[in-house]
Amino acid sequence: MSTFESFVSAYGPLSKIDAFGYLSSLANDPAAPRKQGKVVLVTADTPLKASRGEGKTTATVALTDALRARGIDATAVLRQPSMGITAAGSKGGASGGGKASLKNPEIADWGLFGEMMRIATAQNLIVSLAEKALEEGKLTEILLPRVSEVPSKSLRSIAVAGGKVAEKCVLSPTSEMMQIVTLSRSVTELKNRINALIVGTLDGKPVTASEVADADRIVTVLGDAVQPALLETQNGSPIYMHCGPFANVSIGIPSLISVEMACARHDIVFVEAGYGTDMGAQKWLDIAAREYGAQWPVAAVVVTRASTWRDDPALQWRYPFHIQRLENAGVPSFPLLNLWEGEDDLLPSLREHATEQGFRDPIAGNLFRDGSDALVPQLDDFIAAVTTPSAADLAAMVPQSTAGQTVVSKLKDIIAVSYGVPAERVLEKETFEPSLAAATKLAADAGIDIDKLVVCPVKSPATMTDNDALPASERTVTLKKAEVHAGAGLLHVNLTTSLTTAMPKIV
Amino acid sequence: MSTFESFVSAYGPLSKIDAFGYLSSLANDPAAPRKQGKVVLVTADTPLKASRGEGKTTATVALTDALRARGIDATAVLRQPSMGITAAGSKGGASGGGKASLKNPEIADWGLFGEMMRIATAQNLIVSLAEKALEEGKLTEILLPRVSEVPSKSLRSIAVAGGKVAEKCVLSPTSEMMQIVTLSRSVTELKNRINALIVGTLDGKPVTASEVADADRIVTVLGDAVQPALLETQNGSPIYMHCGPFANVSIGIPSLISVEMACARHDIVFVEAGYGTDMGAQKWLDIAAREYGAQWPVAAVVVTRASTWRDDPALQWRYPFHIQRLENAGVPSFPLLNLWEGEDDLLPSLREHATEQGFRDPIAGNLFRDGSDALVPQLDDFIAAVTTPSAADLAAMVPQSTAGQTVVSKLKDIIAVSYGVPAERVLEKETFEPSLAAATKLAADAGIDIDKLVVCPVKSPATMTDNDALPASERTVTLKKAEVHAGAGLLHVNLTTSLTTAMPKIV
Repeated sequence: MSTFESFVSAYGPLSKIDAFGYLSSLANDPAAPRKQGKVVLVTADTPLKASRGEGKTTATVALTDALRARGIDATAVLRQPSMGITAAGSKGGASGGGKASLKNPEIADWGLFGEMMRIATAQNLIVSLAEKALEEGKLTEILLPRVSEVPSKSLRSIAVAGGKVAEKCVLSPTSEMMQIVTLSRSVTELKNRINALIVGTLDGKPVTASEVADADRIVTVLGDAVQPALLETQNGSPIYMHCGPFANVSIGIPSLISVEMACARHDIVFVEAGYGTDMGAQKWLDIAAREYGAQWPVAAVVVTRASTWRDDPALQWRYPFHIQRLENAGVPSFPLLNLWEGEDDLLPSLREHATEQGFRDPIAGNLFRDGSDALVPQLDDFIAAVTTPSAADLAAMVPQSTAGQTVVSKLKDIIAVSYGVPAERVLEKETFEPSLAAATKLAADAGIDIDKLVVCPVKSPATMTDNDALPASERTVTLKKAEVHAGAGLLHVNLTTSLTTAMPKIV
Repeated sequence: MSTFESFVSAYGPLSKIDAFGYLSSLANDPAAPRKQGKVVLVTADTPLKASRGEGKTTATVALTDALRARGIDATAVLRQPSMGITAAGSKGGASGGGKASLKNPEIADWGLFGEMMRIATAQNLIVSLAEKALEEGKLTEILLPRVSEVPSKSLRSIAVAGGKVAEKCVLSPTSEMMQIVTLSRSVTELKNRINALIVGTLDGKPVTASEVADADRIVTVLGDAVQPALLETQNGSPIYMHCGPFANVSIGIPSLISVEMACARHDIVFVEAGYGTDMGAQKWLDIAAREYGAQWPVAAVVVTRASTWRDDPALQWRYPFHIQRLENAGVPSFPLLNLWEGEDDLLPSLREHATEQGFRDPIAGNLFRDGSDALVPQLDDFIAAVTTPSAADLAAMVPQSTAGQTVVSKLKDIIAVSYGVPAERVLEKETFEPSLAAATKLAADAGIDIDKLVVCPVKSPATMTDNDALPASERTVTLKKAEVHAGAGLLHVNLTTSLTTAMPKIV
């Protein structure tokens, strides 16, 4: 029997874990000791601006420390921040803040051990091999985008083959290769997904990566990027980190293996699911848990700042909507009020407001200043909620897969449940139907029934509908464009105010 | 006093070393124990094809193991192979072969710990910030190329700002950022060199990275890419690896800090210097040792295959020329015959040929098959040569810096000494003079006297002159183009059959 430690390697002051090896050793030895950890989603209100987080990572760190201080074996699985975005100044890092921070944040925020750059390189190699296939007449069009770790204006469009073929370029965390690494539970699955990537077309028919590249070579380029990293909070709590952020333009969840590994090692596993509930939680529930076998969460913590929650009257409906939406799904949902300097005085009125809204008692504190100390005494209800259900109870809550429903029917369900807009107010831009028809044909030609693909909404992180400021009865959601990600098994659909810029701004 | 071990961190099965910290601790504590190791260049005949090595890494590994078997504390400093090129199939890895191999070659050949990808990302971030400056009117032209880890046809030229500004793209090992990391001995030097990078021009005047980027941020992106890796041969000999190959289009030497660190830790330090002597050795002697304070080598080993040496009568002059050129520089030079399967029988005639040529006794063996065992009994003369001179003897051999000589006079000296073509047969393509004039003006506008820059020849790795097959008296070298690398302190000059393709082929 191999111990967990035999799958851990020191990497400088941190470690990396051969999660494929560890999970396979557990699968092969049913008697091997393991825990049945439960997932708690840490999600948030829809942010007023995409670049301004509510404090999910800070809250996750403080909650992990606080539960451990209460004698519960808790951990968290974080998504790796995008170094390119942080370096370009578009967004801060994601390693918590103040007393609720990670040790070695400079490593976590600045590229960890190069995982994202390896993922970018792996996809870029396939694109280069596709270019060669294009030259050789084996391909007439490249669909798979090139990947860049840093945002760049010039890479928004690239001319290949004398301008006859357009290519686009995306950031590492938004690449299909990142999705493939996030979703794959074994090297075999990784290779199968790589082989299934649609790289382009030959006279309109899809050409997959299996026809232009050797999956073994791509896996070799990925190298240790498939291994989650093990970090610690400043208080010494274990924290896992693996795979990318950006639920707005991708799935934005940590890798399934990192969460499974954490659940085999700890009793409570916080999983970051942002930006807001409409995005990160929607994707964990509808994509990871419902379609890819990840755990149904035992609870959710919905982080908000005092200001986000109350400042814009026209958007005040969103936070209670999110809480209710999660409770409707059977996920006990705890408001977490992340107070900033000078906001302590607001607490009584915030608590009153929460009571009026019918929320569970909020967990509140200045987490930057006080860290977990602020939370330890407030967790009785939360602990009761997360320790009661059994693994079987949770497994029973996972809704049936949507595989086989039509794309539009799946979208209407998501939009009704997660954004609060009924089917009759789901609109279609004139480009949507042709785009879906083309995606359907492309998938069919690749041997894939499009109704078997999992729908992945792509939209602005700051809005849920075409105009969130309208009254509920006037809100609409417009479907705009469909795009097949055959390797990941996803159908991306752009909605509402899509963040369609492949490359965010440099500031 | 800090020990060496306090600067070493485990990275999976290998280690990385904070060489800046270690060398600074030695500088601050003159009494700290250290060795005065001597550098031995391992170079080669000019290869018949760039993609076909003579076996320098294999020879370096075998020599290191063999010297250690003889009781000498030997090590080697290798250049990190280009994963992108290996992955594209253009070239094999560079971790030796057979019994003369590294442990964990899959890590060495496939990106180590992401160092090159970090270097690429650091330069790409500066280019992205330059694009922003362009948009803001602070720049009218971008000169600094974008960097890709994998070769790609589409990246040979990129249109920025609606096609008004052309950008090119180079491979990671050939980037100026790689040169900067290779040459910098401290974080301060690193920042100064980054700040001095010319990123483009504003109305013809140079704009440096200091005007568009924050050097601290770039150093943060570089992260642990500035740390050499510590590997082992299959026999357990220590091997250091840091920075890039490709002496044809760059300096192609391991980092200066990795060699200095190795010299402080071991008695004999093999340093790979390829492709051929005309390239790798020329660059170590004329650039690293003469201009950047690296050690003058105590000896050279010139690797060749039986076939390279003798197959093409018109090119047979090159190998003895290289040996003689090194001996002329006062570097005792030992032929090393790297035999392949079925070539053992050639050895007597090869030795006879060496004697006729007046070479030192060759060191010979099938290194792939026999590893160091083949070499151990043959090293008496070599050991005598490398153990005799003192550090002071070697320091006295370094020629005076060429700083202040004109560019053309420096080039004529290099061409005469390293390629055997006298000044009167150095030709200038009509593009050269305008290109040099433009480079001179660009440098002057950046406050740099072009005659203070170190000349770095850029040419095909397979030729030394415009046509190596001509008789000696007819051989010419044509100067083609000059390009300022102000951060690295180099002036690139394209010569003869330049390998000007920024992106090699994918095979």
